[in-house]
Amino acid sequence: MIEFPELLIKRRSIRDYEGKAVPLEIIRKIINESCLAPSSGNGQPWKFIIINNRNIIKRLSDESKKNLLADLENNPDSEAKKYEETLRDPNFNVFYNAPCLVLIAGPRKLLSLYVDCALLACYFMFSALEKRLGTCWIGLGTNIKDPALLKEIGMPADCKIVAPIIVGYPKSTPVIPERIDPQILKIVT
Amino acid sequence: MIEFPELLIKRRSIRDYEGKAVPLEIIRKIINESCLAPSSGNGQPWKFIIINNRNIIKRLSDESKKNLLADLENNPDSEAKKYEETLRDPNFNVFYNAPCLVLIAGPRKLLSLYVDCALLACYFMFSALEKRLGTCWIGLGTNIKDPALLKEIGMPADCKIVAPIIVGYPKSTPVIPERIDPQILKIVT
Repeated sequence: MIEFPELLIKRRSIRDYEGKAVPLEIIRKIINESCLAPSSGNGQPWKFIIINNRNIIKRLSDESKKNLLADLENNPDSEAKKYEETLRDPNFNVFYNAPCLVLIAGPRKLLSLYVDCALLACYFMFSALEKRLGTCWIGLGTNIKDPALLKEIGMPADCKIVAPIIVGYPKSTPVIPERIDPQILKIVT
Repeated sequence: MIEFPELLIKRRSIRDYEGKAVPLEIIRKIINESCLAPSSGNGQPWKFIIINNRNIIKRLSDESKKNLLADLENNPDSEAKKYEETLRDPNFNVFYNAPCLVLIAGPRKLLSLYVDCALLACYFMFSALEKRLGTCWIGLGTNIKDPALLKEIGMPADCKIVAPIIVGYPKSTPVIPERIDPQILKIVT
């Protein structure tokens, strides 16, 4: 059992995984626990796609890279600019060759979608850690536009991907990246 | 010490608080722990305002209610419509008379602001729970527009409030609101 605050300190973004597959029943358990997250008006808008196949994960990476690079051509001031060189490397997999990818998605039109899915993702990452699994939220992995590929993975047209979370057994765990001092703007007493 | 997954099950949205104040050093400790949350590109964009004064919290509630009701006049299809009757009740305090309110805010222009602050808020709520404090994310509490009031609480013009979190010692803890079965759209193996 992991005690708190050990949990807070041990949760790291993992980008280096063992080859070992993640059993589906463990992913299901993590999803069940994650659904205890709070949501706006208890709306629970989150939906899940589990991709436990490295070949399909690689195709999703290629599709996301292609679309990110196309967006960069149209908008050179994009926040993705700093990743351009990495994205142009044909060997770079945005999902870091993880054995499993869980897409957290929900209705495009819902105002609270990003916040609801981010809270769920936080629960997901803690629940995975408790099962000795590493995770990383891949912000570069949401740009899936190809209708055939979206259909293949079962994404409804009225939904969008908010949080692509890679999951696997960590080969190595990085040190805590530097944290700035908390910016407390004012204390009103 | 709280063990996981006890933590997931015990975290509830608390809307009923003891009168007892929350010591500032505990709030600071919760904020320090929360800053271990991951953020997009490790940007750590979150900023904090601690309001440990029920009178000012009441004024923020009145301001938020006023603006929500004005928005409803202009947009009768707003998602706030279902709260209209409650908002018109002069005795309703959107912050549930909690003794402490922490505003989690950040730069308006940042694309990842909502997701980054939601992850931080999740850490905040767990960290508070470990210290036997209750919390609730008050979605109705972000509508502070009065420039004098924003100045009084120290909110910079280029920042916006993402997560107003109330904090206090729970008088009662509600049961877990009903959860729907996890919506797993597809498992690709």
